[in-house]
Amino acid sequence: MIANELRKDYLLDRWVVIATERKRRPTDFVQRPTGEIRHKDCPFCPGNEHMTPPATLVYLTENGEIIKEKDSNGFRHKNWIVRCIPNLYPAFSPPNKHETFEIKENRHAKAFGYHEVVIESPRHDEHPGKARISQLIHVINAYLDRLKFFEEKPYVKYVSIFRNHKREGGASLSHAHSQIIATPIIPRIIKEELEASRKGWENGQKCVFCKIIEKERNGPRFIWENSEFVAFAPWAGVNPFEFWIFPKRHESSPLEMNKDEIRGFAEALRLCLGSLQSLLNDPPYNFGFHIAPVGDYKFYHWHVEVYPRLAIWAGFEKSTGMYINVIPPEDAAKSLREEMNSKLEK
Amino acid sequence: MIANELRKDYLLDRWVVIATERKRRPTDFVQRPTGEIRHKDCPFCPGNEHMTPPATLVYLTENGEIIKEKDSNGFRHKNWIVRCIPNLYPAFSPPNKHETFEIKENRHAKAFGYHEVVIESPRHDEHPGKARISQLIHVINAYLDRLKFFEEKPYVKYVSIFRNHKREGGASLSHAHSQIIATPIIPRIIKEELEASRKGWENGQKCVFCKIIEKERNGPRFIWENSEFVAFAPWAGVNPFEFWIFPKRHESSPLEMNKDEIRGFAEALRLCLGSLQSLLNDPPYNFGFHIAPVGDYKFYHWHVEVYPRLAIWAGFEKSTGMYINVIPPEDAAKSLREEMNSKLEK
Repeated sequence: MIANELRKDYLLDRWVVIATERKRRPTDFVQRPTGEIRHKDCPFCPGNEHMTPPATLVYLTENGEIIKEKDSNGFRHKNWIVRCIPNLYPAFSPPNKHETFEIKENRHAKAFGYHEVVIESPRHDEHPGKARISQLIHVINAYLDRLKFFEEKPYVKYVSIFRNHKREGGASLSHAHSQIIATPIIPRIIKEELEASRKGWENGQKCVFCKIIEKERNGPRFIWENSEFVAFAPWAGVNPFEFWIFPKRHESSPLEMNKDEIRGFAEALRLCLGSLQSLLNDPPYNFGFHIAPVGDYKFYHWHVEVYPRLAIWAGFEKSTGMYINVIPPEDAAKSLREEMNSKLEK
Repeated sequence: MIANELRKDYLLDRWVVIATERKRRPTDFVQRPTGEIRHKDCPFCPGNEHMTPPATLVYLTENGEIIKEKDSNGFRHKNWIVRCIPNLYPAFSPPNKHETFEIKENRHAKAFGYHEVVIESPRHDEHPGKARISQLIHVINAYLDRLKFFEEKPYVKYVSIFRNHKREGGASLSHAHSQIIATPIIPRIIKEELEASRKGWENGQKCVFCKIIEKERNGPRFIWENSEFVAFAPWAGVNPFEFWIFPKRHESSPLEMNKDEIRGFAEALRLCLGSLQSLLNDPPYNFGFHIAPVGDYKFYHWHVEVYPRLAIWAGFEKSTGMYINVIPPEDAAKSLREEMNSKLEK
């Protein structure tokens, strides 16, 4: 009997069983068509802008130039390219005037912050895996604009940019969108990554993530790279077909990207998410940015983690914080690499 | 605008947003009938014992007494009351002779251990919320027998007993069953609880869990108690309608239960899971035991955590380790308390 392998994350004290015995092939995960219902009156579709709160940011074109505007209470911009709106049911919301953030008895606080939706395209069914690069650049720029805006608020410590794809992925509306949540505390996974990366930095070594990237670029978990970005399946990934996208240059926040990097990042998202989509017939997934919190965290290295939703985390995972992954990351990387190459050859 | 509340767990560095603004009522969560298909050839049903590996433990009755047996390769016991079998696709499996457990470079190891299924009843549809107390006592005793067996192995550090209810809850077969996984490392959530409870104990205070129990028994999150056990909704629960069941006596492991406590625990499971089932029309859920690992952890206080699956953890939760719970634990406790009282009055 060949034992499965237990693996620990690069930085987190998180273990995963890589099931070599119960190993599955990509075909085991190919999605059946779910017949997702297209909402007739989608509040994110052009023409229905009045169904949402006023946009906090819209991108419009004027004489071929992008201009940035926002809606007002009685007015909604039309013909937008990208549109950011407050979430109707915000998990975090800004304080009233003169309220300050305070953690009481180390156990509770008011959930000050922001919760917004980024409508990625006027096209209902646009998927980043198929969108034009120019459109993805607009989406990324909108992320960056809102990120900058939120980070300037005194009660914001961390900004999470994430995407939920499909109903099983937690998306309550099917129109292409991502979300941004600004929180008044540093979330635990980020905090753990910070602690581990600070240690390495202070010991005079180089960034721990830079070392990981260098290693994974040249190994069996490598998926894809261009001049600016690299994608690989993480050593101890907890989801089947999980992959991470890193900027090659050491940057603690996506706000440090230059124009070439923004384009390179758009290309990375398009190719990696597109390969996941075509390999497994449009599976549900989540992605989340990991970025440095507000403050001096130059030792951190921002990146995006993509979590396909092909397994159910149940009693064992939820009660212990250990995971079981039935696709070895090396196999996932190989399948994604091959899918990507077949796309690039077309 | 009333801000939502951020709450930190009793012991873990885990924060949850309790959504008071987006607050929902229990009726929002009542399940629609899903038409779960009953498997014609259920391998866990009586008569199909040959479809599974040989049982590692079966409970039989003989002249009104319980006797314990196990199957052999060519032979399967019939007329069993409870039946424990190896999982066909084990995440953890025992080492070959002379192999010892070793963590290499602090990042990988062989996944030595056990992975078994406890078939809780010959009746396909038996749910602990409706089972006879006597049957639940057999199930608990089977858990304890296997727990004891696993804990004697030199490479076992922790034993996780858990239940996945319904397909959406991660159960691949609908016949009433739970699972037991024995692992060669202490899982991270347990490790964090151990560290926090050890600190309190060593400072000459009493058990931190005993203090939590005392407080919650007398507060707005209390759900139910008998002489031996108490159930409450945890202060910073991350799932809607989450509740925890604790023995009142300080015990680090369920192996310390006396006969009265075993009966009291069976009653707790029946009533609490039964109320969850009737309140929300049989929702999917997971439960997991939290018990002391193998070794000297007398400061730990074992308990069971029940996680109803009524929300999807998506990009935000998965990438940050922060959670959003749209049912305040106080409201969840009130609904469960009322449901339980209406059951007890019948």
